[in-house]
Amino acid sequence: MLNKILNHNKKFVEERKAAGLDKPISGHAHQNLMVFTCMDTRLVDLVEPAMGFKRGDIKILKNAGNIIRDGCDEIIRCIAVGTALMGLSEVYVVGHKDCGMAKQTPEAIKEKMLERGITQEILDSIDIPQWFGLLKDERENVLEGVRKIKESPFVPKDISVYGLLMDPNSGEIEVLC
Amino acid sequence: MLNKILNHNKKFVEERKAAGLDKPISGHAHQNLMVFTCMDTRLVDLVEPAMGFKRGDIKILKNAGNIIRDGCDEIIRCIAVGTALMGLSEVYVVGHKDCGMAKQTPEAIKEKMLERGITQEILDSIDIPQWFGLLKDERENVLEGVRKIKESPFVPKDISVYGLLMDPNSGEIEVLC
Repeated sequence: MLNKILNHNKKFVEERKAAGLDKPISGHAHQNLMVFTCMDTRLVDLVEPAMGFKRGDIKILKNAGNIIRDGCDEIIRCIAVGTALMGLSEVYVVGHKDCGMAKQTPEAIKEKMLERGITQEILDSIDIPQWFGLLKDERENVLEGVRKIKESPFVPKDISVYGLLMDPNSGEIEVLC
Repeated sequence: MLNKILNHNKKFVEERKAAGLDKPISGHAHQNLMVFTCMDTRLVDLVEPAMGFKRGDIKILKNAGNIIRDGCDEIIRCIAVGTALMGLSEVYVVGHKDCGMAKQTPEAIKEKMLERGITQEILDSIDIPQWFGLLKDERENVLEGVRKIKESPFVPKDISVYGLLMDPNSGEIEVLC
């Protein structure tokens, strides 16, 4: 696939240059806003247009299941970077319906991991539901994420944090909090 | 901003529905591929078209600085989910030139965090360069990320992992490994 990507990229860069679209823009997000959502392929090129955002407008965080796991500081780190260091004033946690992370079971994960060559010893070293960040419910997960961001001592207190749920096909947004 | 987003979303959903674009598509990434890149606003709606990908093609992970910090399992978790559970066979770590995370200093971070109301006590509880994931060099960071993914016992051994560097304005890709 790498060669296909590079061939495409060469044309992409040339066409963009010819159209004058390659001029530097600011790394400062114009809308002072961060979106934290899921890595799901249906949200690629859907979350941004469904919310009305373009390149240069916002910063976007993505992980598996838009979950903030207990004991894991990675998402809070990124939100702290955006809010305390880069001037963002609003954070939107955007979950979605039909999330793959709400469908996995620890037993099925164990089986698939073993099939793919991950060792029994490694699997025994973790708590599977916690380590993989399995979701019980997409809505609860968004509400929990919003709560954790608001309560974090690394996030400025004047930041607005919202929780939304998106339909991964229509792009329709429901406000949860 | 929430009201503006919701007003836009209403129109977006109606127009998409009228055009027949709201039909369910598979949550399985067609290109069996995952991209791990940075939350930078200049990469929004640039990384995907610059690599030739559309909605439904790939899964995308994004954090601050596309860094895999020592002692933090979050990115490896997401890659394990994608590769061992969801059948992805290639991972691309896509760093970019002019990354904000390579420009921060611990002293400036401390000052900005205090200004934004984060307490001295909280700042004293962390190792600033490690916690914030400061980068010394964008290229080294990509190479280090690729190495960590390849060496992780949670990632199947037959996965191909590549390291790329993108120009955040032109979208031009350089292959690092």
